[in-house]
Amino acid sequence: MNRITELFNIKYPIIQGGMVWCSGWELASAVSAAGGLGLIGSASMSADVLRAHIRKCKESTGRPFGVNVPLLYPDVEKIMRVIVEEGVKIVFTSAGNPKLWTSFLKEKGIKVVHVVPGAKYAAKCEAVGVDAVVAEGFEAGGHNGREETTTLCLIPLVREAVKLPVIAAGGIAGGRAMLAAMILGAEGVQLGTRFVASRESSAHADFKQKVADSAEGDTFLVMKKLAPVRLLRNKFCAEVMEFENRGAGADELKRLLGADRDRKGMFEGDVENGELEIGQAAALMKNIPPAGEIVENIWKEFCQASEEIKRGEGREDRG
Amino acid sequence: MNRITELFNIKYPIIQGGMVWCSGWELASAVSAAGGLGLIGSASMSADVLRAHIRKCKESTGRPFGVNVPLLYPDVEKIMRVIVEEGVKIVFTSAGNPKLWTSFLKEKGIKVVHVVPGAKYAAKCEAVGVDAVVAEGFEAGGHNGREETTTLCLIPLVREAVKLPVIAAGGIAGGRAMLAAMILGAEGVQLGTRFVASRESSAHADFKQKVADSAEGDTFLVMKKLAPVRLLRNKFCAEVMEFENRGAGADELKRLLGADRDRKGMFEGDVENGELEIGQAAALMKNIPPAGEIVENIWKEFCQASEEIKRGEGREDRG
Repeated sequence: MNRITELFNIKYPIIQGGMVWCSGWELASAVSAAGGLGLIGSASMSADVLRAHIRKCKESTGRPFGVNVPLLYPDVEKIMRVIVEEGVKIVFTSAGNPKLWTSFLKEKGIKVVHVVPGAKYAAKCEAVGVDAVVAEGFEAGGHNGREETTTLCLIPLVREAVKLPVIAAGGIAGGRAMLAAMILGAEGVQLGTRFVASRESSAHADFKQKVADSAEGDTFLVMKKLAPVRLLRNKFCAEVMEFENRGAGADELKRLLGADRDRKGMFEGDVENGELEIGQAAALMKNIPPAGEIVENIWKEFCQASEEIKRGEGREDRG
Repeated sequence: MNRITELFNIKYPIIQGGMVWCSGWELASAVSAAGGLGLIGSASMSADVLRAHIRKCKESTGRPFGVNVPLLYPDVEKIMRVIVEEGVKIVFTSAGNPKLWTSFLKEKGIKVVHVVPGAKYAAKCEAVGVDAVVAEGFEAGGHNGREETTTLCLIPLVREAVKLPVIAAGGIAGGRAMLAAMILGAEGVQLGTRFVASRESSAHADFKQKVADSAEGDTFLVMKKLAPVRLLRNKFCAEVMEFENRGAGADELKRLLGADRDRKGMFEGDVENGELEIGQAAALMKNIPPAGEIVENIWKEFCQASEEIKRGEGREDRG
C-alpha cells in the first residue's frame, strides 16, 4: 500500500480524528475494526477515564488504534504516563510544540504524528523526528490555524516542505475528496466532522442531528483573538460573533466562553448555549451511519473515482 | 472533450479569470491563443478603454475570448452596450444578481457564466438561464463570499445543486489542483492569481514580484463588514486589520479604503499603501512566466497526474 498504511499497519489510509467529547473507545474501535485508524480523543478525559477507554478499545478490536493528545491541556503528563503504561502504539499530538513529547514517545517505541496548520510547522515536526504530519486546513472543525490556509493550498505546501508522509485533514467527508487530497500529495486522510455524525460517536444525539441537518455557511471560524475555533451556528456562536464585531478582546471572549461550554454543547446536548465544534464538511453530510460503514463507503467511492480516471473520464470526457 | 470546452469552443477547460487592473487584451489573447479561455476584466476600464481592448484582442487571436463584468459597477449599461456592439461571444458576470443581464445577453447569442460563492446562488443562476457557473472558494483572491466555503467543500455542494457545468476557482494554480477539482465534480477551472504573475498581465512589475515572493499565510480576507476581499499582506492590509480588530464599522473602513487604492497598488505599483488583491495560491508560485506557458504547464501536469492514477499509483502506491 503506502507509507501511511505501513506506518500504522492498517488496511486503508483513512484516519478518524481524535475529537473532544466525540471519540471514545466505541468510535475508535469501530473505525479500526473496519480497516481504518481510530483515535481516542483524550482532551475530554481524565487520565483514569482515558485508561478505561484504552482498555475497552483493546478488548474490542485487535486492530491498531491510537490516542490524540492536545499538548496544551493541563493533564498531559498524566495522560502520557497512562499511554505508556497501557502499551498504546500510536499517538497523534496537536495544539502545542511537537518538541515537548516526541523523543519521550519515540523512545518507548510509539509512532508519533503531529497536527499542523502550515508548512513551517511541518518542517519543525520533521526536525524533531515525528513519523508523519497531519496537514489540517481552514475548513476543519474545532481548533484551527491562524494562517487560514485551506486544505487545497495546504497539502502541496506541506508536501513540498517535508519528506514525511502527509495526512490531509479539513473538508474531507468522502472518497472523492480523499482522491483529490492524494493527487495533491497526501498519503492518507483524517476525518473528524464525518465521524462526529456516526452511530458510535459519543456526541449527544441532538448535536449529531444538528450536524446532519446543517447546510453550507453554517459554520464559522471564531475566537480568533483567543484561539481560532470553527463552530456550528447556534445562539452561543452568534453571541461570540456579536462580541467580535464590536472589537471585544481576548479577556472578554474568555469570560463569555466560561467553563465547560464544549461539554455542555457536544456531550450534554445543549445545542443552543453550548460550544459545537464542527467543520465545513458538515454541509456535505445528511445521515448518521455506523462508523464502519463510513470507512467502507469512503474507500468504495475513492476506488470508483480512481476507476473513472483510469477509464479515461478524467481526460477525454471530463478534462 | 467536455461541456466546458464545447460551450466555449476551446482546447483546454482552463480559464483565466477577469481581474481588475491585471487582465487586459495582452493577457486574455495570450491565454486564448494557448488553447484556454482568456477574459478581459472590465472592472478597471471605461467603456471606451474596454472597446479598444476587445478590438486588440480580436486582432491578436482568432480564438474565443470573453469579458468579465462585475454587475455592481456603475458603468454596467455602457459596458454591456460595447460588448454587444463589438460582437463579444462570452461574458462572465460577477458581484451582483445574475437575473439583471442574463436574458439580455442570451438574446444576443452571448454565452453567460456567473461567478458564485455558494450552492444557493448557483441554483438561482440555473433558474435565470446562465450557461455555466464558476464556484469560487474562500481561498480566492479579491472579492469573496460571506459563507467562507472553501473550494474543496464548495465544488461538490454546487455540483449537487445544479445540472449546469461547474468551473472551479480559488486556490488552483497547477494541474494537480485542476485534476482534484475535476474529481470533485468541476468540468473546468478558473485561475486568477496564477495569471496575475504572468508576463502578459497588466499588473505593475512590483506587484507581480511581490506575489511571486509571497509565502503561506501572506493573504488575508478583510473588509468583511463592507465587502469581503482577499488581500496580500502590506502596510494598507495591516491598517485594515488593525481597524477591524478594534471593531471599526463599514463607514470607517470605507473612509480608510478611500478612492483608487486598487489602481494605486496593482497598477501603479505602490505595494505598501495600495490594495493588492490576490489569492492563497500565491504561496504556491515562485515565477512570472508567459501566460501561454502557464496554460501548457497546467495541462501537462494535469495529464501527468491522471497518468499516475491510470498506472495505479492512485491505489496501490499512494492509496
